[in-house]
Amino acid sequence: MKGFLVEDKKLKQLKEIVYEANMKLHRSNLVLFTWGNVSEVDRERQLIAIKPSGVEYDKLVPEDIVLVGLDGKTIYSNLKPSADTKTHLRLYNAFPDIGGITHTHSKYATSFAQAHSPIDCFGTTHADFFLGQVPCTDFISDKSLNKDYEDETGILIVETLEKKNIDVKNIKACLVAGHGPFVWGQTADDSVDMSIVLEEVAHKSLITLLINPSTAPLKQTLLEKHFYRKHGKNAYYGQKGAN
Amino acid sequence: MKGFLVEDKKLKQLKEIVYEANMKLHRSNLVLFTWGNVSEVDRERQLIAIKPSGVEYDKLVPEDIVLVGLDGKTIYSNLKPSADTKTHLRLYNAFPDIGGITHTHSKYATSFAQAHSPIDCFGTTHADFFLGQVPCTDFISDKSLNKDYEDETGILIVETLEKKNIDVKNIKACLVAGHGPFVWGQTADDSVDMSIVLEEVAHKSLITLLINPSTAPLKQTLLEKHFYRKHGKNAYYGQKGAN
Amino acid sequence: MKGFLVEDKKLKQLKEIVYEANMKLHRSNLVLFTWGNVSEVDRERQLIAIKPSGVEYDKLVPEDIVLVGLDGKTIYSNLKPSADTKTHLRLYNAFPDIGGITHTHSKYATSFAQAHSPIDCFGTTHADFFLGQVPCTDFISDKSLNKDYEDETGILIVETLEKKNIDVKNIKACLVAGHGPFVWGQTADDSVDMSIVLEEVAHKSLITLLINPSTAPLKQTLLEKHFYRKHGKNAYYGQKGAN
Amino acid sequence: MKGFLVEDKKLKQLKEIVYEANMKLHRSNLVLFTWGNVSEVDRERQLIAIKPSGVEYDKLVPEDIVLVGLDGKTIYSNLKPSADTKTHLRLYNAFPDIGGITHTHSKYATSFAQAHSPIDCFGTTHADFFLGQVPCTDFISDKSLNKDYEDETGILIVETLEKKNIDVKNIKACLVAGHGPFVWGQTADDSVDMSIVLEEVAHKSLITLLINPSTAPLKQTLLEKHFYRKHGKNAYYGQKGAN
Repeated sequence: MKGFLVEDKKLKQLKEIVYEANMKLHRSNLVLFTWGNVSEVDRERQLIAIKPSGVEYDKLVPEDIVLVGLDGKTIYSNLKPSADTKTHLRLYNAFPDIGGITHTHSKYATSFAQAHSPIDCFGTTHADFFLGQVPCTDFISDKSLNKDYEDETGILIVETLEKKNIDVKNIKACLVAGHGPFVWGQTADDSVDMSIVLEEVAHKSLITLLINPSTAPLKQTLLEKHFYRKHGKNAYYGQKGAN
Repeated sequence: MKGFLVEDKKLKQLKEIVYEANMKLHRSNLVLFTWGNVSEVDRERQLIAIKPSGVEYDKLVPEDIVLVGLDGKTIYSNLKPSADTKTHLRLYNAFPDIGGITHTHSKYATSFAQAHSPIDCFGTTHADFFLGQVPCTDFISDKSLNKDYEDETGILIVETLEKKNIDVKNIKACLVAGHGPFVWGQTADDSVDMSIVLEEVAHKSLITLLINPSTAPLKQTLLEKHFYRKHGKNAYYGQKGAN
Repeated sequence: MKGFLVEDKKLKQLKEIVYEANMKLHRSNLVLFTWGNVSEVDRERQLIAIKPSGVEYDKLVPEDIVLVGLDGKTIYSNLKPSADTKTHLRLYNAFPDIGGITHTHSKYATSFAQAHSPIDCFGTTHADFFLGQVPCTDFISDKSLNKDYEDETGILIVETLEKKNIDVKNIKACLVAGHGPFVWGQTADDSVDMSIVLEEVAHKSLITLLINPSTAPLKQTLLEKHFYRKHGKNAYYGQKGAN
Repeated sequence: MKGFLVEDKKLKQLKEIVYEANMKLHRSNLVLFTWGNVSEVDRERQLIAIKPSGVEYDKLVPEDIVLVGLDGKTIYSNLKPSADTKTHLRLYNAFPDIGGITHTHSKYATSFAQAHSPIDCFGTTHADFFLGQVPCTDFISDKSLNKDYEDETGILIVETLEKKNIDVKNIKACLVAGHGPFVWGQTADDSVDMSIVLEEVAHKSLITLLINPSTAPLKQTLLEKHFYRKHGKNAYYGQKGAN
């Protein structure tokens, strides 16, 4: 495989993209020490590029980014991939629309996960990016815990999204109970941005609940108005369509 | 119209002023990504200058600022104006005393809007700038939502202020329920400063309520003492009248 | 008087000291815009040096610092002194042990003032600097409000401290109900440091109350142990007495 | 003794290590003014190196670091060691596995101490570093207070850990009621990192409790899964074992 990789410009680019996304996450203040990881998938080559496990951001270089096949086999690297790699793989394999994934322990989103609470949509900031409540999984069972923990975590997220009929293009995050958020997007960079949005939305949700603990979720019509102002074929926010 | 604009120094200045105000907002930490916009009106020329929609602050240049007539017709621009332009226009058209407008999704003010709660005046920091409670609109009706959303949002704010007999010179902000604050001032720059003040006041209001949930609003006499120490013909704060 | 001042090196130094203390306050993040002021007294010359009213910190220069006699008469300045000057004067005149005073609208201390709540001593961080609860005045009466507001605010603080038998050497701050903290020290610089401490202590008090709303104040023995570890003739913290 | 020290390269290194750890603590935003100290032990030479008392971080140089014997006698220094030195010594003498110690008054961990509350494990961020609840001592008795306060504080921590059968390799922190956290690690640097982790964990615990005051601690199986993913001979996080 080595030869294949050395000659492949696309893979070099992919590693650089994933490196840049990890460094953007590092600058975002969402991550302490090495507690986060970003990946991106190359559907054509059937592999992902992901941060190596436990490497400090200050020492990370693009060459350190690890390539792993969608079948779970490491293709080429001197470093071990992120401990959460199997969780990423489950999501990529279940949902063809996911292009990049970010995992963090960011303060507010993680605290909702710790409280085993989804994040309700209380306002248009949320609605601009997530078409409804950001879900939270159940706690992982001891049975799953003792099997292949990170793989089982991925299965848990997939099952939660399926049970709730969630379209991953419309709600790009899921909290894992007692753990923290997994967030996705069209690319690695997009998934980092969505992680920043999720943290902001989680923080505002807490403040909203402190002001009025019985705040009701935003009505469906207003939720949809804002989401589709920014997404889909009738979106009119931004410069799309401007001459 | 193009010729008129190219030759008009005042309009070039206006675009620079609005550009600077948007960049000040960007530096203020009230805004994530592109979630904010500032405008200023030129009453003589019957037009406003406003941030283009969805353009990143880092890439914004003064020439990008969009000119829109008070009648809602874009006068000249390669870029689409802010999606919230019609809300700004409603306010300018209803209140001749408004010179500049800022809209943000700042954390605390937005959370009060999400909780559908006005911001009571609990102290002199608030009273120094707002002569009483900062109001919050009702939730927009589905009927209005389905018409011309941003225009209807402007109408909602205007109606709220009129129903409460609010003088826009004395209370320079209104929360839109489930959405966030619209803030105004004599100029674009002034409206940015007032947005910073509003966020500080909102944050302190929450902390005050956490310390004592049954805190009563400041008495009217103390409220007025502080407001008129800084505003109106008997103001004695600052260097006005010093030799 | 002008000649006296121009020739007096001590007064030039005093203005520089007060300028530096005001700039330290500006860097401390306790102050938004111009919402704070620091002064220092010269007991020999019977005057104070204080920040001018409403001047932005970025534009402030040492020459702008205003000199005001302890009798309330401005001695020499092109600028008006801080609007709170009379409050400072009351404190200097009532307590010979006060050498410098800082007033801010810092978030947490101000919010306790807004909630009309003193700041209880919940831990050794507080006890290291304040020998007990930081008091809060009653709300100013309408009668006082309509007389000479800033002077009356000073009287209110003095009366509160006297009623509670507070030694200004042991408790160097007082909250004014609905307004914010006035903090003092041996010098202007010391009063700025104490303002930073007060804000930290106020923030921790709120967090403590959020964790356990019925937290009891620290017992008197532990309070005194910590205070006198750092203050008075038996203090043994720091390098005093080291060779 | 002086000669012994001057010639000893290891001690010079130790002072540099402890200096660097104190400066890292200073940069971490956990410490205001001089409110923190870090030490490291040299078991071979039976001594510790520790920050001097009350010296500002900006003025600290490696030569200022004080050497103190494990028997409590200062070996060589122009400066007095940290006022908390005896607390450090008790911990080093009781637990051979402790290599470095950090004491801070960091906001959230200290507030849990002020509320006399341990920090429950609510999530995997906590479980990645602490194998269970971070304990809080009882309040120090007046009898202990009046003896040798800092020594008695050390005894109190040791007794608390022993009573709760805590292995200091698995739970590297203890809150002292009404005071703040003492945190340890294999080295001085490690104990600073653990202080940063503790503060993050404490902050998230508070947020979790604000979202849901009746949140239950993480189940033991998930707690252990995460802790042993990062610690002990079966750890698989990071690059250990990678080629």
